[in-house]
Formats: sequence, structure tokens, C-alpha cells
Amino acid sequence: MKKKESCIFCRIARGEIPCYKVYEDNFVIAFLDVNPASRGHTLVVPKEHCSDFTTCPKDLLDHCFEVAQAIAQAQIAQLGATGVNVLTNVGASAGQSVLHFHIHVIPSYREPILGLKGTNLQIEDKEMLLLQDEIKKAI
Amino acid sequence: MKKKESCIFCRIARGEIPCYKVYEDNFVIAFLDVNPASRGHTLVVPKEHCSDFTTCPKDLLDHCFEVAQAIAQAQIAQLGATGVNVLTNVGASAGQSVLHFHIHVIPSYREPILGLKGTNLQIEDKEMLLLQDEIKKAI
Repeated sequence: MKKKESCIFCRIARGEIPCYKVYEDNFVIAFLDVNPASRGHTLVVPKEHCSDFTTCPKDLLDHCFEVAQAIAQAQIAQLGATGVNVLTNVGASAGQSVLHFHIHVIPSYREPILGLKGTNLQIEDKEMLLLQDEIKKAI
Repeated sequence: MKKKESCIFCRIARGEIPCYKVYEDNFVIAFLDVNPASRGHTLVVPKEHCSDFTTCPKDLLDHCFEVAQAIAQAQIAQLGATGVNVLTNVGASAGQSVLHFHIHVIPSYREPILGLKGTNLQIEDKEMLLLQDEIKKAI
């Protein structure tokens, strides 16, 4: 299993740093975020080191999101959350603070927690078609 | 396959409403968001109707996130995105506007697109332990 000595999430996964653990199996650990956006904000983290969502092996990716789903269900059932945001950031410029893939599972309670800046961009049809082509050809 | 006559994403999946499609297979369709938060903002949508992330069958959930991963990779490779936010909202109070499960894949370009409101809540150790127990016992 790939691991990085200095990575804080690798160290939590190895039990070297304590956490408020809510779930663990051979591949994944989930624990409360110590800088929570809301009560019960949980992080799902693969034990194997990978930098972010785009570099995580598919089997592990699947498993991480299945654990995230169970946690979102638990937040609604047990914490009385009225909604949940499930989020993963890729890259420091998108807000990724720890460069080890992790999924935020953030319960919300009546009020939204997340906001999108600059929503409803006006993009002309011609540019939408270009963007569509660029993405399409790389998949 | 479950579908809902009036659901806008079911209608897009059936081809009744046009879209800027970037990917399609038997189970999933992905297209540009017409109210984009950034250039290339894409939605990944299962063709089968399910209300949100918490109710999506596991196999389909896995597949949706694998497609989202390919799209995030394409946004970085083709659009010059420096980061990506991958987000799904559960419930209207968490910002879910269409009640058919969908994943936002939002490229960012130097500036963050997403903001968390009320981050860094101060929660005492005692309450963290209670939250941990509540989530743990429901998984």
C-alpha cells in the first residue's frame, strides 16, 4: 500500500495521530473534520495515499463514495440533518488543503453551508459547443 | 428502468430536451450545466431516476463517480483547469435544485469557485464525541 511518511491523513490512517473516527475498514477511514463547517462534518479518506479524486484507483474510488453514502444516510437519520453536501476538491486552487484524496460529507441543518461563487455565468452557445467538444474528445 | 415523466433530467436522458452532451452510455449521461459556475461546469446524471446521492443504488453510484473522474481529468487536460470541485447536494436545504441525483464537476481556473459558509465552527470535545457516536452507530 502506497503511503507517505509526512502526510497527515496517512498518519491518521496509521493511527499515529488521533481522530474522532466514525468508520474504518481495510481500505478506508472516516472521521470528523476538526475544522468543521457544520456539526458532524465528516471526512472519508482512503488509507492508500493518492493525491486527489483524479488519481484515485477506480475500485478504491467506488468504495470511498459508498462509505460516504452510508455516512450521509447516518447524518440524516441520527443527527437530524435536513440536507448533505458531498464534496471533494482537486488541487489547491479549488480549495484542497490536504493533498491526500478525501471526501467531505457535510450535513446541513435548514441553512445551506456551501455557496457557489460566480454562478450563472453567461456563456454563448458557440463557446458552450467548444467546451462540449473539448471535454468530449478527452473522455 | 425507473423514470419520472415530469423530471427534467429524465427528459434530458430520454432525449426529449436538448443538452450540451459530453458523454453518454447505457446508464449515465453527462452534459454542460446551462447555469454554469465556471467554463465547462458539467453534470453527471444517472438515466435511472433516483432522488439523490443517498438513494442511488451502489453500482450506479460507483459508475457515476467513475464518469465524473474521467470528466475532471478531461477538464484539467483540455480546458486548462487548475482545479476541480466535485459536488453533489442532497436535499433542497443543501442546495439541490433538481430532485434527480446529479454530480457537479466544476473546473476552476486559479480562483476558487466554491465557498464554505461558517467554516471552522468551534465544537467542544464532548460534543465531537457525541457526534462521533451518533454517526458511528448508524453505519
